[in-house]
Amino acid sequence: MTAAHTPAISLPPLANDRFLRACLRLPTDCTPVWLMRQAGRYLPEYRATRDQAGSFMGLATNPELACEVTLQPLRRYDLDAAILFSDILTVPDAMGLGLSFAAGEGPKFAKVVRDEAAVAELAVPDMDKLRYVFDAVGTIRKALADENGVGKVPLIGFSGSPWTLACYMVEGGGSDDYRLVKTLMYQRPDLMHRILAVNADAVALYLNTQIEAGAQAAMIFDSWGGVLADGAFQQFSLAYTKRVLSQLKKEHNGYRIPHIVFTKGGGIWIDEIADSGCDVVGLDWTMNLGKARAQVGDRVALQGNLDPNVLFAQPEQVQAEVIKTLDSFGKPSATSGHIFNLGHGISQFTPPDNVKVLVDTVHAHSRQLRG
Amino acid sequence: MTAAHTPAISLPPLANDRFLRACLRLPTDCTPVWLMRQAGRYLPEYRATRDQAGSFMGLATNPELACEVTLQPLRRYDLDAAILFSDILTVPDAMGLGLSFAAGEGPKFAKVVRDEAAVAELAVPDMDKLRYVFDAVGTIRKALADENGVGKVPLIGFSGSPWTLACYMVEGGGSDDYRLVKTLMYQRPDLMHRILAVNADAVALYLNTQIEAGAQAAMIFDSWGGVLADGAFQQFSLAYTKRVLSQLKKEHNGYRIPHIVFTKGGGIWIDEIADSGCDVVGLDWTMNLGKARAQVGDRVALQGNLDPNVLFAQPEQVQAEVIKTLDSFGKPSATSGHIFNLGHGISQFTPPDNVKVLVDTVHAHSRQLRG
Repeated sequence: MTAAHTPAISLPPLANDRFLRACLRLPTDCTPVWLMRQAGRYLPEYRATRDQAGSFMGLATNPELACEVTLQPLRRYDLDAAILFSDILTVPDAMGLGLSFAAGEGPKFAKVVRDEAAVAELAVPDMDKLRYVFDAVGTIRKALADENGVGKVPLIGFSGSPWTLACYMVEGGGSDDYRLVKTLMYQRPDLMHRILAVNADAVALYLNTQIEAGAQAAMIFDSWGGVLADGAFQQFSLAYTKRVLSQLKKEHNGYRIPHIVFTKGGGIWIDEIADSGCDVVGLDWTMNLGKARAQVGDRVALQGNLDPNVLFAQPEQVQAEVIKTLDSFGKPSATSGHIFNLGHGISQFTPPDNVKVLVDTVHAHSRQLRG
Repeated sequence: MTAAHTPAISLPPLANDRFLRACLRLPTDCTPVWLMRQAGRYLPEYRATRDQAGSFMGLATNPELACEVTLQPLRRYDLDAAILFSDILTVPDAMGLGLSFAAGEGPKFAKVVRDEAAVAELAVPDMDKLRYVFDAVGTIRKALADENGVGKVPLIGFSGSPWTLACYMVEGGGSDDYRLVKTLMYQRPDLMHRILAVNADAVALYLNTQIEAGAQAAMIFDSWGGVLADGAFQQFSLAYTKRVLSQLKKEHNGYRIPHIVFTKGGGIWIDEIADSGCDVVGLDWTMNLGKARAQVGDRVALQGNLDPNVLFAQPEQVQAEVIKTLDSFGKPSATSGHIFNLGHGISQFTPPDNVKVLVDTVHAHSRQLRG
């Protein structure tokens, strides 16, 4: 019996604590499930609220509306966790880079960080500039609670990883080849390390403030770690994810706060990520869950990893693929944990009915697996 | 001593056969090097010839001009192989889908394959429609030969993999999410298998005809294999790459023809790819070459895997990263083979002088490694 399984772990009072239990590799009646970007454009009610807010950032910075869209998928589906509605890039926005989303396009920064002068100006932002996020966390927690203050499901807080933030800060937006950020990294590693150090300390403070505001788990999205070369990944992405993790609160008000790291394309480095100090490793769909489980042993729980494109198939096929994913992880044991998720954010084109098939199949089949 | 190392292997007469020897895991004086897309837009002389041809397809379909651009990088750099100037999508173009390249954009097909009727029409194309490719192969071989018919370096022929061709045929061009091709794959696996079977037989015939025309090695680019989920990769990509390999000529005119498979993002499946029947596995930069070598043992040679973005750094940094890559493979042994390459095509923005630094460093440092 490892330390993680002693009764000393204290979990917050929740009507459904499956997600937190699986993160900490405690037994569950069935496999918990939530979906990256579950509050999103595939839901007509989300689109209506976003139109009301006027823009993505208008929505993200309005705690009442952010709360509303966070709860929308929970009204439709039997999901085991809520995730704060926000963006992975709020921290560089608070650093003064000016985040915006043009209609139908990805994120853009008004200012970019490409030279010594711009790097020298970077600093951990005043958390007051991110007050809207912490207010949203508090509002959502209240909305999730029943009359006795018992939450329906836990609330996950999150941020982009230091490297992923740096990609956007240097490129100024998305990229096909990461030429600018990698040029800076290979030409001026000193500047890149400085950006990453500031980002790591800012992300740690940001996540800790989310935890203080009520986030019951913290997830780091290393969306672009997988574009790095072996060696560079360890040095420029994982090292700074570890720097965040080492500063993160592991408990708040006596309750354990699990930490999740998701590196898209990171399956190849799963061993090293499992040793980063996190509780849960998120995986994309390229990784075989059974192999991953054998590799990580009882170091961490696993989260993932259905290809979101499966949701474009017929319900029977969605069901079959969900079962295949659950079976590839296999029967949970006393020291393993699996949180079902997609291997990436849900597509805006997803038919909402298929999400119900997915969620219900996860619960039904994983109950059978335990039987 | 394995069969691949008996003196029975016959290699064509070449002034420089390092590349072919490394493919077959025979000893070499230093590590051979060539670069994916080495004949390309980063070279001003390439841009001049393309302007003369009027368009990319105008250039690819003109054997004299295709020969000219194939040879251009060999005049500048001490490269150990030439690669036919062509595109990975010539086969579906010959199937009647109408390939074109808009200025500054990726490939587009005029016709797409998304329903039962379009799939039913697909057939292995008449190789006469690809005559321009085989003519280019013959022209290049003549241009590479000295007065005694001895080639300067070997010529590599290539094609896209069945799955990669299918991605473009269904999507109609590049894609961020592969939604259409994956929807077809999950919804109608029967149609996808039919597309892939036709593609595999077409690619095999196409590569064999290139070999008969003079190609001395054959490479299959599975550029989009890495977007598939574990399980789907084996079923929809690797199975059809194997179907190509099983039909490919292993010898021509008594000379051994090595087969190379490159799956971008395929490091996670290296074991299975090494068992596909190919001679060489190409790797992108996410894979550690030392680990890869330990995994494949003496089954295949390895090709790769520098991040092309390294070429945007200063010459000293390019040198250091090339040395790091060679050292990660380590000292070649009697049963190992390494061909230095990038982990993806060279960027159009690459400073040409850095390519010389790369090539010369590969030769100099790998000679030292052997010393």
